[in-house]
Amino acid sequence: MALIVQKYGGSSVADVECMKRVAGRIKTTADAGNSVVVVVSAMGKTTDRLVQLAREVHADPSDREYDMLLSTGEQISISILAMALHDLGLKAVSMTGPQAGFITDDAHTKAKIMDMKPVRVQRMLDEGNIVIIAGFQGLSPSGDISTLGRGGSDLSAVAMAATLKADKCQIFTDVEGVYTTDPRVVPEAAKLDEVAYDEMLELASLGAKVLQARSVEFAKKYGVVIEVLSSFTDAPGTLVKEEVKNMEQLLVRGVAADKSQAKITVRDLPDQPGVAAELFAALAEANVNVDMIIQNMSAEGKTDLSFTVPSDDADKSKAAVNKVLGHIGGSEVIVDSEKAKISVVGVGMRSNSGVAHKMFQALADSGVNLHMISTSEIKISALIDMSKADLAVQCLHAAFELEKA
Amino acid sequence: MALIVQKYGGSSVADVECMKRVAGRIKTTADAGNSVVVVVSAMGKTTDRLVQLAREVHADPSDREYDMLLSTGEQISISILAMALHDLGLKAVSMTGPQAGFITDDAHTKAKIMDMKPVRVQRMLDEGNIVIIAGFQGLSPSGDISTLGRGGSDLSAVAMAATLKADKCQIFTDVEGVYTTDPRVVPEAAKLDEVAYDEMLELASLGAKVLQARSVEFAKKYGVVIEVLSSFTDAPGTLVKEEVKNMEQLLVRGVAADKSQAKITVRDLPDQPGVAAELFAALAEANVNVDMIIQNMSAEGKTDLSFTVPSDDADKSKAAVNKVLGHIGGSEVIVDSEKAKISVVGVGMRSNSGVAHKMFQALADSGVNLHMISTSEIKISALIDMSKADLAVQCLHAAFELEKA
Repeated sequence: MALIVQKYGGSSVADVECMKRVAGRIKTTADAGNSVVVVVSAMGKTTDRLVQLAREVHADPSDREYDMLLSTGEQISISILAMALHDLGLKAVSMTGPQAGFITDDAHTKAKIMDMKPVRVQRMLDEGNIVIIAGFQGLSPSGDISTLGRGGSDLSAVAMAATLKADKCQIFTDVEGVYTTDPRVVPEAAKLDEVAYDEMLELASLGAKVLQARSVEFAKKYGVVIEVLSSFTDAPGTLVKEEVKNMEQLLVRGVAADKSQAKITVRDLPDQPGVAAELFAALAEANVNVDMIIQNMSAEGKTDLSFTVPSDDADKSKAAVNKVLGHIGGSEVIVDSEKAKISVVGVGMRSNSGVAHKMFQALADSGVNLHMISTSEIKISALIDMSKADLAVQCLHAAFELEKA
Repeated sequence: MALIVQKYGGSSVADVECMKRVAGRIKTTADAGNSVVVVVSAMGKTTDRLVQLAREVHADPSDREYDMLLSTGEQISISILAMALHDLGLKAVSMTGPQAGFITDDAHTKAKIMDMKPVRVQRMLDEGNIVIIAGFQGLSPSGDISTLGRGGSDLSAVAMAATLKADKCQIFTDVEGVYTTDPRVVPEAAKLDEVAYDEMLELASLGAKVLQARSVEFAKKYGVVIEVLSSFTDAPGTLVKEEVKNMEQLLVRGVAADKSQAKITVRDLPDQPGVAAELFAALAEANVNVDMIIQNMSAEGKTDLSFTVPSDDADKSKAAVNKVLGHIGGSEVIVDSEKAKISVVGVGMRSNSGVAHKMFQALADSGVNLHMISTSEIKISALIDMSKADLAVQCLHAAFELEKA
């Protein structure tokens, strides 16, 4: 008998009909002799409605009260799902995040899990229950309800699977798994049977929205095997794990595009120690997440420095740089918001050369110009014009023959 | 500086506009130098919507899951109200029933308060907060969320006021207080300035829906002075307390009508010991609440026995009596569902005679026939035809000159 943790997102439990379908799926899993723990998100648009309600009374609601409010969304889901399971004749019991033993810090709306004490969950499992847990929430040190922030329900599921030493953690969503790239851009995109944690981490941070990087990091740390699959079909999903098939043979696992990049260039900086440090200190203070950075040598001891930030942060970044520009001695700040970052990801790169060459050749053949390049052990990224983003993804997908994945 | 507990019902917090009005009222109370604890119900139709949702997944939902679901209604209210108070620049903090220290038994959906441990409430008050508490809910011995059942939020407010030794417990509702009778039936009905606990208890159990008897009993037991008033006007309300003005001079405080009564008559019972006991045992087993009872002597050692029950229980009652009819030896069971119970209530009756005479005379003068009569120390009730109910209330209200109250 296996212990399986399943997580159903908002679109999987959008309405009563969806709830009943999910209940049927849980019954199938339980009838096969498995112990089942289920983590659920709020039903469909519930969270949006609660957010709207809050905005109507306060422009900037208190984080603590916001969590008190939003956590009701999952609480509705768990009780309705428990009732739906009862209706199928199954033993089931619902639990809020605090009841299930998620102990967090007190950073309301973006709390971190500090400890797991699923004493009641374990007891209820031992008594033969399917345990339905409210995702996304926990108990703060002061006894308040906290929420884990974006993608929090995935994290709840992975953390519970790790603590209970579950055999599998299934994340049900509205797509069939992790794809070689966005199927809306490349119709031939193939669903991956398996993907390594590190690859998934890169893909998640590069804009593949299936799993939040935070959950993947947690899964990697505790060795939780995740399966991403659709709650609307019976197709097998994608396994996210440490060791995957063809790990070294397959050079590239996927192609990702992040279309919300801005490139910021600071002109004519003095080529002296400490200049870059002061510049990026100013950006850090403004809470800007800088991604790629390059520095060009230019004449007369002057240099140009370029970096990328999320488009939304472009104005804030420009303002932050302008504040120190006089002091560090640059001439001007140029912002180009119409950029995209295209990346190929694969753990096979670690032991294979030639990926960069193949990537740049493919992009060149398609007339895509590269503005910046950055690499990691298992990823190569290039900054290109936004208008060429889809074309770039398509030519890279074809060049690495990912439709055969 | 006084400590005031305020309770706002569902109609007082029906939508965001109502919430803001309530926040303004709380601000006025706080600005006057009072400490304020607020108990709120779910917003408007929230509870109805949640009940509907539950019905869509299960015909008879588990009580525990039902409480898990319904308690979200108040949790939404408290966080929204806290945000509305923040928006007015006030320090406020919301608390669920469990957080506020309502310890109940495990009778889900109709839990009883077993203990009060408002440690956090007291601390938050001491720190200068307005404390907003979810009414209607508490924590069961197994650590689950329980609900107190009908009228539970009033009880939450009264219990919190008793425990904190509050100076006043204000119950805000959509009427301006307790009236001498239903103003829809008697336009001259007067709002009472004060009413004694015992009178309110009789009025509550006789169909005046302003306060549930359960809350009044609790207030009487712990000496909590309740003020019933409207959240939509600034008019003073009705004080419910032990000693009231003109306690002995005023014979009658109010007239109540309960229009959902059925009269059941069992014919030709043998006039022997044990017959009534067996009859009412059968009714008790069927969970029927019997109200008035009379027994007529008739010829040849046979007797007719009549009693009243809520109309909704008429069929169940008839079935229960029929089950034992053969054994106890009656001839037939007659049900008349079209009855109303009219009552006059007043603590002044204790020390004044003549109320019954005046009541019966007034009814006779208006052509109202009496089928049954029952009395307590502070109340006289008569069962009459439903069709005469409004006429009876009007003539009694006039006879006792209650418009002058």
